[in-house]
Amino acid sequence: MELIGDERLDYLLADEHLRIIQSKTVFAFSLDAVLLARFASIPIQRGNILDLCSGNGVIPMLLSKRTKAHVTGVEIQERLYHMAKRSVQYNELEAQISFIHGDLKEMKDILPQSSYDTVTCNPPYFKTPKATEHNVNEHLTIARHEVKCTLLDVIQACKRYVKPGGKVALVHRPERLVDILELCRAHHLEPKRMQLVYPKQHKEANMLLIEAIRDGKPGLKILPPLFIYDKDGTYTKEAEEIIYGN
Amino acid sequence: MELIGDERLDYLLADEHLRIIQSKTVFAFSLDAVLLARFASIPIQRGNILDLCSGNGVIPMLLSKRTKAHVTGVEIQERLYHMAKRSVQYNELEAQISFIHGDLKEMKDILPQSSYDTVTCNPPYFKTPKATEHNVNEHLTIARHEVKCTLLDVIQACKRYVKPGGKVALVHRPERLVDILELCRAHHLEPKRMQLVYPKQHKEANMLLIEAIRDGKPGLKILPPLFIYDKDGTYTKEAEEIIYGN
Repeated sequence: MELIGDERLDYLLADEHLRIIQSKTVFAFSLDAVLLARFASIPIQRGNILDLCSGNGVIPMLLSKRTKAHVTGVEIQERLYHMAKRSVQYNELEAQISFIHGDLKEMKDILPQSSYDTVTCNPPYFKTPKATEHNVNEHLTIARHEVKCTLLDVIQACKRYVKPGGKVALVHRPERLVDILELCRAHHLEPKRMQLVYPKQHKEANMLLIEAIRDGKPGLKILPPLFIYDKDGTYTKEAEEIIYGN
Repeated sequence: MELIGDERLDYLLADEHLRIIQSKTVFAFSLDAVLLARFASIPIQRGNILDLCSGNGVIPMLLSKRTKAHVTGVEIQERLYHMAKRSVQYNELEAQISFIHGDLKEMKDILPQSSYDTVTCNPPYFKTPKATEHNVNEHLTIARHEVKCTLLDVIQACKRYVKPGGKVALVHRPERLVDILELCRAHHLEPKRMQLVYPKQHKEANMLLIEAIRDGKPGLKILPPLFIYDKDGTYTKEAEEIIYGN
């Protein structure tokens, strides 16, 4: 299999079998994606899952360890889409995972509406800065900033493709919680389950995982907090289980 | 000082000086009020604080330990209002704390609008059940259920009386978080600070503390989680500091 430029073929967590193509200068997955792939409620034996802002395909590949359902990833950056496709080929997962190169705002003729059991998304976190403040690396800028899609675009797409009663799972930053909950409810995605992630004890949360149900009844559960590092700077037992897992 | 029926004159936490009138059958304060009184940002040297749904006046009395500002409590139940007044007299706090007996929806001619530095409220948590399901004790039903005021009434009153740039601090249940954030923002009270309270590690949150700023800019901080009990069922060090504190 061809590796381009500074691409590496990394192990996908501690998995001995799955490998994933990454590159520091183009895209490398972060803990956020790993946590979302484990947090999302998904069908296990059959069904369809959609992953938006799929990047190098880390979430579809992680989900394939938990489910037999088909996973479709959508990624706007052609370079990342190619990385994802090659990783899936390398892992011989083509039957379970497919990728679409395109803009999530323009998938109406490509993806079936109101039909996915679960939609996952690890979107760009930061509001679009001035052009002069953009990361000089365009790949990283698009992945991190709302250049190509806003939170509203993401929520609208989630609503469009998830089936009634289906689930939408997102990872994002605490400072956007009010926006997320407000937009979810405005699009009939009722927030039902939330977990806050703290870098360590006595620190503010720096990540949140949230799951909404399309047309669900109001009533949010807030799961036990997840701490990533112990006092001594090593992973907590819980984080270790998720990262090096099973 | 007169005690009525099954009223007791309890110590206010571990404070050797402050005492508060309570009664199991009418009203006794809970941990929720204690946590809110310590969570709320308040002016220290001067200013005005408003406490809605004041019950037996526990929050104004706890706040008086932290501030020289004047505190006004509003309580709809005449029986509780009298308990609060007598407690304040007993503690000789009449110069700093005053109580109003009335409905927070009907205070427009009594309280000055847009003028309080901080508004606190520990409102009834539960949606109004059918009349047959009401607590047979009317005092407790009104304190716990949205019989006399809804969450919307509370948020509207907070908005009406807090000054621009002033703070609104609430304690509530996690299942109402989406409602709270949505209503706050709709009333120009921007949520800025939240803390989740967990009964113990590995359990779901059962309480939330939230502070909004009138006309504030978006951007929520989520403080470190607060655990109440250790594994062995005793108070955690943090909870102990708050409850027996200082």
